[in-house]
Amino acid sequence: MALIVQKYGGTSVGSVERIRAVAERVASYHSSGHKLVVVVSAMAGETNRLLGLAREVSRSPSERESDALVASGEQVSAALLALALQDLGLKAASFLGHQVRISTDSAFGRARIQSIDKHRLLGALDRGLVAVVAGFQGVDGDNNITTLGRGGSDTTGVALAAALCADMCEIFTDVDGVYTSDPRIVPHAKKLARISYDEMLELASLGAKVLQIRSVEFAKRYRVPVHVRTSFGDAQGTIVVEEDEIMEDVLVSGVAHDRDQAKLTLLRVPDRPGLAARVFGPIAAAGIVVDMIIQNASADGTTDLTFTVPRGDFDKALSLVKGEEAALGAHGIATDTKVAKVSIVGLGMRSHAGVAARMFEVLAAEGINIQMISTSEIKISVVVDEKYTELAVRALHDTFVAPRPEEARSGA
Amino acid sequence: MALIVQKYGGTSVGSVERIRAVAERVASYHSSGHKLVVVVSAMAGETNRLLGLAREVSRSPSERESDALVASGEQVSAALLALALQDLGLKAASFLGHQVRISTDSAFGRARIQSIDKHRLLGALDRGLVAVVAGFQGVDGDNNITTLGRGGSDTTGVALAAALCADMCEIFTDVDGVYTSDPRIVPHAKKLARISYDEMLELASLGAKVLQIRSVEFAKRYRVPVHVRTSFGDAQGTIVVEEDEIMEDVLVSGVAHDRDQAKLTLLRVPDRPGLAARVFGPIAAAGIVVDMIIQNASADGTTDLTFTVPRGDFDKALSLVKGEEAALGAHGIATDTKVAKVSIVGLGMRSHAGVAARMFEVLAAEGINIQMISTSEIKISVVVDEKYTELAVRALHDTFVAPRPEEARSGA
Repeated sequence: MALIVQKYGGTSVGSVERIRAVAERVASYHSSGHKLVVVVSAMAGETNRLLGLAREVSRSPSERESDALVASGEQVSAALLALALQDLGLKAASFLGHQVRISTDSAFGRARIQSIDKHRLLGALDRGLVAVVAGFQGVDGDNNITTLGRGGSDTTGVALAAALCADMCEIFTDVDGVYTSDPRIVPHAKKLARISYDEMLELASLGAKVLQIRSVEFAKRYRVPVHVRTSFGDAQGTIVVEEDEIMEDVLVSGVAHDRDQAKLTLLRVPDRPGLAARVFGPIAAAGIVVDMIIQNASADGTTDLTFTVPRGDFDKALSLVKGEEAALGAHGIATDTKVAKVSIVGLGMRSHAGVAARMFEVLAAEGINIQMISTSEIKISVVVDEKYTELAVRALHDTFVAPRPEEARSGA
Repeated sequence: MALIVQKYGGTSVGSVERIRAVAERVASYHSSGHKLVVVVSAMAGETNRLLGLAREVSRSPSERESDALVASGEQVSAALLALALQDLGLKAASFLGHQVRISTDSAFGRARIQSIDKHRLLGALDRGLVAVVAGFQGVDGDNNITTLGRGGSDTTGVALAAALCADMCEIFTDVDGVYTSDPRIVPHAKKLARISYDEMLELASLGAKVLQIRSVEFAKRYRVPVHVRTSFGDAQGTIVVEEDEIMEDVLVSGVAHDRDQAKLTLLRVPDRPGLAARVFGPIAAAGIVVDMIIQNASADGTTDLTFTVPRGDFDKALSLVKGEEAALGAHGIATDTKVAKVSIVGLGMRSHAGVAARMFEVLAAEGINIQMISTSEIKISVVVDEKYTELAVRALHDTFVAPRPEEARSGA
């Protein structure tokens, strides 16, 4: 008998039929004697419908009211799931952020959980109830409704599992686990049975959008085992655990790619102290997340400063950089919005030299020019021309993860 | 400069366009210097949509979860109105029941307000905000979401006006006031400029469904002036005030009718002490509201006990009475589900004798048989065959309120 937190995403509760199917699954766990806390997202499409209404009444919807608005979506799905569970004869009750209570800061639309009061939920579990919790939402110190950002229900699930010292946090979603690469690009990509928090963090932040990255940070910090699995069947998915629970360190666990990249280069800037602060201060103030930064000093005392941003932020970033161009003494700005980032991730890299060199060889053999390089202990990322994305991913997967099956190779 | 509470019903906020129109109206009040608290219902149709979903996942939806579910409807309209107000340049914030905080008992689906914390709203008003409050909802002592029953947003509006000592509570709705009778039956019915709380209570409970009856009780208890008016124009509606603010006591303010009536008679029951308790105890326990009760003692020591219930409760009431029939020694049960109640209401009745006699004469002249009679200080109700409803209402309106115009009379 375990305490299990389950999280069901918007697709998994996207219709009355799906909600009933979730209730059946929860009931089968419950009949095995487990204590259950179930976190739900809004029904698929509901959050966007509500945000659409907001944009119809307001040219620039405020964050506080947008949060109060969209939080209603999880309220509906939580109440409906509680009703469906009761219809199966279980005792169940829904809980909103303010009822749990999930306390956050006041950063509307991207709030961070500060504390969770576990007593009300534990009391409900002790009385034999299934506790259904509205994901994605909390309340700040003034009892204003906050939301945790897109995918925030993952974080609700993991944070509750941490607060309640749950034995497992199961994330039910519309994919059946974490793959060694995108199966649309690499048809023979394999599902990983286990992956470490750190690898998952690198994969999530690199564009393998299975789990909200902050939920993984939470899981790592509080050592919550997370099982990512499909809600459309009983197949085992991928368990995200601590590194020491992974039997063998494979060299490369996965090959990720991210097309949401745009590149800006300040050309031949006089290399003075404070240059980077001057460039990135205004960009950070505008809320733009800069991904890779590379600076090459040259002998003449100038430097090329290159960085990447999400494509949606490209125009804003460019205008900010242009505003500083003259003051910095740059000789122009070069841009490229047709780039992609390709990365290999694996714990084994820490103890194996030469992985980076081998990666560059593979790409060179395919005639792919590397524009930027960035490395961490367990990952190597390169920025390449977007048109080479699939080619690079396949070549790296073949080399580091699993060779293409013979029939696929001969057919290529 | 006044403090005004406004309440807008579901039709008035039924679309994005309507919400924007409400925002314009609120803004015009605000620009006159008034402090404003605006209570909103769910967008028209939303509550029924949500209850439909509940019935799809559950054969018998529990009240706690149904309340949590439908309360989301007012959350959406409150946030949207706050956004629309902000878009017009006003400062505005939405508040839910638990944020205000509106404390109720735990009678889910029909909760009663126990107290309202006025400090957060007054603080918002002092900072120049328009406070938009989700109607219909509160929280009980355990922070469970409760709802106040159909039409509960009226009660929210009046209760807030009472708690905040507002100068006026304006109820904006899709009718333009309280009429002397149903204009569909009496085309020349007139809008009343003023009406007393007591008359409004009698009219509301008699089927003139303009205001939720509990909101009128609240208004009377706390002496809140209520202005019922249309949200589709600027016309003055009907102001519900204390009796001493009504200039002249008209004999009859209005003629009401109610077709939601079914009649049961226990025939020739031995008339013993405790009879009524024996009959009505189980009916009250089943939550059925009995309207009229008449008992005629006869010389042989038996009595006919007749009462009316809403038609939706008829089957349940009948089976409860049948359960007691033998024990009571009744000689059968007579029923009639095709009856209607027709009433005349007016403060002037208190000081004028002979109103009842005149009413019975008018009905007799039209050949209408009176089945039951019930009177209070300011109203007289009769139960008649349903098919006479319109005829009775028109005849009484012609006699007591305003004669039919000549052209209508000659055309009849």
